[in-house]
Amino acid sequence: MVPHLVTALTGPINELEQRILDSMPAIERWFRLEWMEHTPPFYTSVDIRNAGFKLAPVDTNLYPGGWNNLTTEMLPLAVQAAMAAIEKICPEARNLLIIPENHTRNTFYLANVVQLQRIFNMAGLNVRVGSISPEVKKPTTIELPNGDSVTLEPVVRTKRRLGLKDFDPCTILLNNDLSAGAPGILEDIHEQYLLPPLHAGWTVRRKSNHFKAYEEVSKRFGKMLGIDPWLIHPLFTHCEDLDFAEGVGIDRLQASVDGLLTKVRRKYKEYGINEKPFAIVKANNGTYGMGIMTVRDAKELEDLGRRARNKMAVVKEGQPVHDVIVQEGVLTMERVHEAVAEPVVYMMDRYVVGGFYRMHAERGTDENLNAPGASYVPLAFEHSTHLPQPGARPGVSAPNRFYMYGVLGRLAMLAASYELEATNPDAEVYE
Amino acid sequence: MVPHLVTALTGPINELEQRILDSMPAIERWFRLEWMEHTPPFYTSVDIRNAGFKLAPVDTNLYPGGWNNLTTEMLPLAVQAAMAAIEKICPEARNLLIIPENHTRNTFYLANVVQLQRIFNMAGLNVRVGSISPEVKKPTTIELPNGDSVTLEPVVRTKRRLGLKDFDPCTILLNNDLSAGAPGILEDIHEQYLLPPLHAGWTVRRKSNHFKAYEEVSKRFGKMLGIDPWLIHPLFTHCEDLDFAEGVGIDRLQASVDGLLTKVRRKYKEYGINEKPFAIVKANNGTYGMGIMTVRDAKELEDLGRRARNKMAVVKEGQPVHDVIVQEGVLTMERVHEAVAEPVVYMMDRYVVGGFYRMHAERGTDENLNAPGASYVPLAFEHSTHLPQPGARPGVSAPNRFYMYGVLGRLAMLAASYELEATNPDAEVYE
Repeated sequence: MVPHLVTALTGPINELEQRILDSMPAIERWFRLEWMEHTPPFYTSVDIRNAGFKLAPVDTNLYPGGWNNLTTEMLPLAVQAAMAAIEKICPEARNLLIIPENHTRNTFYLANVVQLQRIFNMAGLNVRVGSISPEVKKPTTIELPNGDSVTLEPVVRTKRRLGLKDFDPCTILLNNDLSAGAPGILEDIHEQYLLPPLHAGWTVRRKSNHFKAYEEVSKRFGKMLGIDPWLIHPLFTHCEDLDFAEGVGIDRLQASVDGLLTKVRRKYKEYGINEKPFAIVKANNGTYGMGIMTVRDAKELEDLGRRARNKMAVVKEGQPVHDVIVQEGVLTMERVHEAVAEPVVYMMDRYVVGGFYRMHAERGTDENLNAPGASYVPLAFEHSTHLPQPGARPGVSAPNRFYMYGVLGRLAMLAASYELEATNPDAEVYE
Repeated sequence: MVPHLVTALTGPINELEQRILDSMPAIERWFRLEWMEHTPPFYTSVDIRNAGFKLAPVDTNLYPGGWNNLTTEMLPLAVQAAMAAIEKICPEARNLLIIPENHTRNTFYLANVVQLQRIFNMAGLNVRVGSISPEVKKPTTIELPNGDSVTLEPVVRTKRRLGLKDFDPCTILLNNDLSAGAPGILEDIHEQYLLPPLHAGWTVRRKSNHFKAYEEVSKRFGKMLGIDPWLIHPLFTHCEDLDFAEGVGIDRLQASVDGLLTKVRRKYKEYGINEKPFAIVKANNGTYGMGIMTVRDAKELEDLGRRARNKMAVVKEGQPVHDVIVQEGVLTMERVHEAVAEPVVYMMDRYVVGGFYRMHAERGTDENLNAPGASYVPLAFEHSTHLPQPGARPGVSAPNRFYMYGVLGRLAMLAASYELEATNPDAEVYE
C-alpha cells in the first residue's frame, strides 16, 4: 500500500493505471515475496515521469535529500517505517550519527537534515549530525529560515570506530552520496552499521547497472501483470570511453542515440503514439541533474557547441565524464501551476512514505527538471477514499493515482537492491 | 513513535507528561527491546483515562472494533503496520478471511468490518468476510448508510480447514471476541493462521490476569523512567465466587472495595490530591461495558438495589458474573464538546496507528463511558510540529499530548502480550 496522495493529473485513469489499480493485492504480494529474497535499500527516492501512455523511473537516489518537502502528515509514516528498518538492522540501537553532504551553507539542504534527525529521533534514537567537511572544525549551530536549527559537529575517527566527541553511535546514516569518492575516514568501519553501504555511492554505482537491473525487474513484473514491460521501462544503451572536451567518441555516441531512437520510433508506431521520440544522454555516475542532455535527433550531437560540451564534460565535484547512458526520453504529462512537473516518491525501508512534485517553469516536457530554478510542491493526502466507486468490490477504496507512482518507485527500489547485491564487495561467493 | 494527533486537553503539559515526552528515545528503545522478547498481539485497542495527576489504561481489547472511527489520514499508517504484521506472520499470504461478530444488523459495526477489509486489501490480500452466525445461510450483501457495502458469507468447515465456498484463506482474522465461548467450528485449526489465537477470547481471558501483567509492565517501565508506577497503574484486587442475584459474597466484595479505597486514599494524601477516591467493580471476563459499576463508598454495596444486582449478574451473551475485579477508579479530565470523554488508542502489530475519543454526554467523570449513548470523535492529525519550542534540542518536534496516550496504549498491549504468553495452551514448557 501507498499513502493516498492527490496528484495533479486529472481526467480518467488510463488503461495501464487501471490495470495496476485492479491488481493491487497481487502486486503487494509480489513485493512481499521479493523482499523475502532481497534487502531493500535503507531509504530511497525515485523520480518518475508519466507520459500518459507509459511511465518510468528516471533517477533512483540511495542517499535521498529533500525529506523536508514531505508534509507533516507524512511524518508518522516515515517514522513508522524507520522504526521497522531499525528494528530489523539493529534493534538495540541507541545512538545514530547522520553524515550529511558537505554543503554546510545550503539551508534548504540542512532543513532536510533536520527532518531526518526528527524522523529518527521519533523512531527512538539519539541523533546527532557529524560532518566530514574539512570546514567543520568545531560544533557549529546553524539557524534555518523556518526556525529550526541544526548543529554540525566534526566527526572523530578512532582505529575502529567513527563518532563525535562524547557520542559513540552504533549506526551511521550516510546522507552524502560520495560523488567525490568514499573518503578514507569512512573506510574499514566494521564494528558499526554504515547505511547505506559505501558501494551505494556514485564512486561504485553506475546508472547502466541500475537500469539493467530495472529492466530485469520490469520484465518479471510485466509478466506477472500481463503487460508489455516497455510500458514501465525506458529503453537504454551504454556508451564508454568518451571525452567530451576533446570530442572523442562522439561518433559512437551518435550511432547509439540513432539506434535507440529507431527502436523507440518502432514502439511508438506499434502503440499508435503521435509523439516525437527523444533520447536523454546522462553521465553514467552523474547526479544532481548535472551532465544530462536531451537529444531529439542524433545530428544534434555533430554540432554540439562548446557550452554543451563543457556541461557534459564534468559532473558534481568536478569529476570528468567518460561514460554515459543513452536512455529513451519519457515525456512528463504532469503539470503544477502550468509548470512541467515530475513526481518524486520517497521510501523508507520497503515502504512508500510520501512524495512531492519537482516542477520547473522554464523547462519543457522532454527536459530534465532537476536543475537550478526547480521548486517543490508537496503532495497532499487524499480525503476522498470513501467515495463510492461504481462496480467496485466492497472494501476496495476509490482509485488513487498516486498508487501507480508508489509501485514504480518500489520497482526502481527493487532494482537498486539487485544492483547493490551484484556490486557488494563483501558478498559471499558460492562456487 | 506515535502519530501526532490533537487531543482535547489544552493548558500546559504536566510533569508526568513532560517526563514521558523528554524520554521519547529511551521509551522507544525500551519498547523495541521488549518486542524482541515478546510478540505483540495482532491488533489492539486500549481505552485510557487521564486524571491529570495520573493516567491508566482501563480496557485492552484484542478483537478491536471501531476501526471506522479512525480518520482517512490514519489509514496509510494502519495499512503500513498491517503489511509489517503480515510479512512477519505469513509473507506468502494471499487470502484473508475476516470472522466478524454475529450482530449482522448493526451497520455501525459492519462499517468497522468494511474498514478492516479495506486495510488488509490495501496491504495486499484478497479479503472476504465469513460469518459464523447461524443466521447467515447464504452470501448476504448489506448496504451501509455511508455508501459502502459488505458481503457476509457462511463459513465452510472441512476436517482441517476453515474457508468459504471457493475461497481458501491461509490466515483467519477474528474480529469476534468469543464472549459466548469459542465455537467448535474454530477449534482444531492447525493448518491456517488463526489471529488472534482462541485463548485471547473472553472465555479464557481474565481482567485480573491482564492487570497483573500490566502491574509488572508498569513497574519495569516506571523503574526505567524513574517514576512511581502508581502514576500509570490503577490499583486493583480480585474477588471470586460471587452470586449477585443471590447476594452471595457481597460482604467479601465490600471488604475488598474498602481495602482498595483506603490504599488509594493514602496515595492521594501522599500526592496532595483533593479528590474523592472511587472504585470500579467489573466482571473479570466482561466486555462491551456490561457488568461495570462505580462505587464511591463500600457501604453502597449493602443496599445494592435489584436493578444494579441484575446489571452485574450477567454480561454479554447472558454469561453470569461470579468473578470481578475491584479497580481504583481513574477520573477522566478529557472533555469534548463539554461531554466527558476518554481517548481510545488503536494499534496494529507494535505500532500506534490512530485514535479517537469516546464521549458520553450523560455520564460523569468517574463513570464508564462505554455504554448506550456513547459517541465517537476522531482525533485529527496535528499540523504544528514545526513550531519552535524554547529550549528544545534541534530536531525534536513540539510536544504532543497524544504521545503519552500512545505510550500507555503500548504498555497495555505489552501486558496483553505477557498475558497471552502465560495463558497459551500450546506453550512449550521447559522443565
